[in-house]
Amino acid sequence: MTQLASTPSTLRPEGYPRLCELIKDIDFTMFTTVAEDGSLHSRPMATMQLDADRAELWFFTSIDSPKVAEIYHERTVGLSYASPGKNNYVSVSGRAYIVRDTDKVTELWTPAAKIWFPQGVNDPHLVLLRVVIESAQFWDSPSSMVVQLWGL
Amino acid sequence: MTQLASTPSTLRPEGYPRLCELIKDIDFTMFTTVAEDGSLHSRPMATMQLDADRAELWFFTSIDSPKVAEIYHERTVGLSYASPGKNNYVSVSGRAYIVRDTDKVTELWTPAAKIWFPQGVNDPHLVLLRVVIESAQFWDSPSSMVVQLWGL
Ligand SMILES: Cc1cc2nc3c(=O)[nH]c(=O)nc-3n(C[C@H](O)[C@H](O)[C@H](O)COP(=O)(O)O)c2cc1C
Repeated sequence: MTQLASTPSTLRPEGYPRLCELIKDIDFTMFTTVAEDGSLHSRPMATMQLDADRAELWFFTSIDSPKVAEIYHERTVGLSYASPGKNNYVSVSGRAYIVRDTDKVTELWTPAAKIWFPQGVNDPHLVLLRVVIESAQFWDSPSSMVVQLWGL
Repeated sequence: MTQLASTPSTLRPEGYPRLCELIKDIDFTMFTTVAEDGSLHSRPMATMQLDADRAELWFFTSIDSPKVAEIYHERTVGLSYASPGKNNYVSVSGRAYIVRDTDKVTELWTPAAKIWFPQGVNDPHLVLLRVVIESAQFWDSPSSMVVQLWGL
């Protein structure tokens, strides 16, 4: 049987280091939220941190952005990481929370973030998005079985 | 203003040729469905056709695959196309339909599909997924405004 009919082939809570390894070279995820009418919308987002101990991913965003309103309405989010060159594809399911925490912003700040927040860490619009990972899968070749990294 | 706080900058029903151009070089999309518990799941999928006249995308899949059950339960899907090398990112929102149509399968068949359907066009598990595009946006550089390609 091919992987098409497969359910995830392995349950690996210990898959966490592999998740880190896979996504550390993929700068941008497509971050999917559920709009109020139920439709799914994605946009590229720079991953600021993958916190292995807490199974969390952190992002910067603007409090005014439509995705923040969508997340207040519905926390369920999906993140996909694609590295077509290496044939690596990762799917993360989770819940997103809007967090205001200047210390955390300072910890995660990089000069590259100035493209979006020219005022830097004290930009009044800058908020954190914390995504608690509920499950993750990856594929590393077209004929591979999907591998469950995390979750049920 | 940066794109983080932006709403789509342009309404372009005429954005269709650009959508074709952007996704024709991206072999695989991350195809997101809504599971019965509301969580979002993505998996890589090969785009078999973008039908410009009908605003439809076509895929092959197996009738037994969990995504088919998810789509029967909830048609709303999100597709993301990422080309990190070229810095192109596309989000498509739509509705998915399961279609059995051997003529259409034959029309879209490519030998590459044998990886998933070794029995070829007559594989009894092979069904078509038709995605009717409701809206699409793209980003072509980190600092760009999002561009609305299609839809409201
Ligand atoms: C690069 C790549 C391309 C794939 N293309 C397809 C495809 O076109 N159709 C398909 O059903 N599965 C494809 N798969 C497998 C799916 O990603 C997935 O594992 C399978 O369809 C089962 O998905 P489901 O359990 O979510 O239903 C592809 C996998 C990879 C790695």
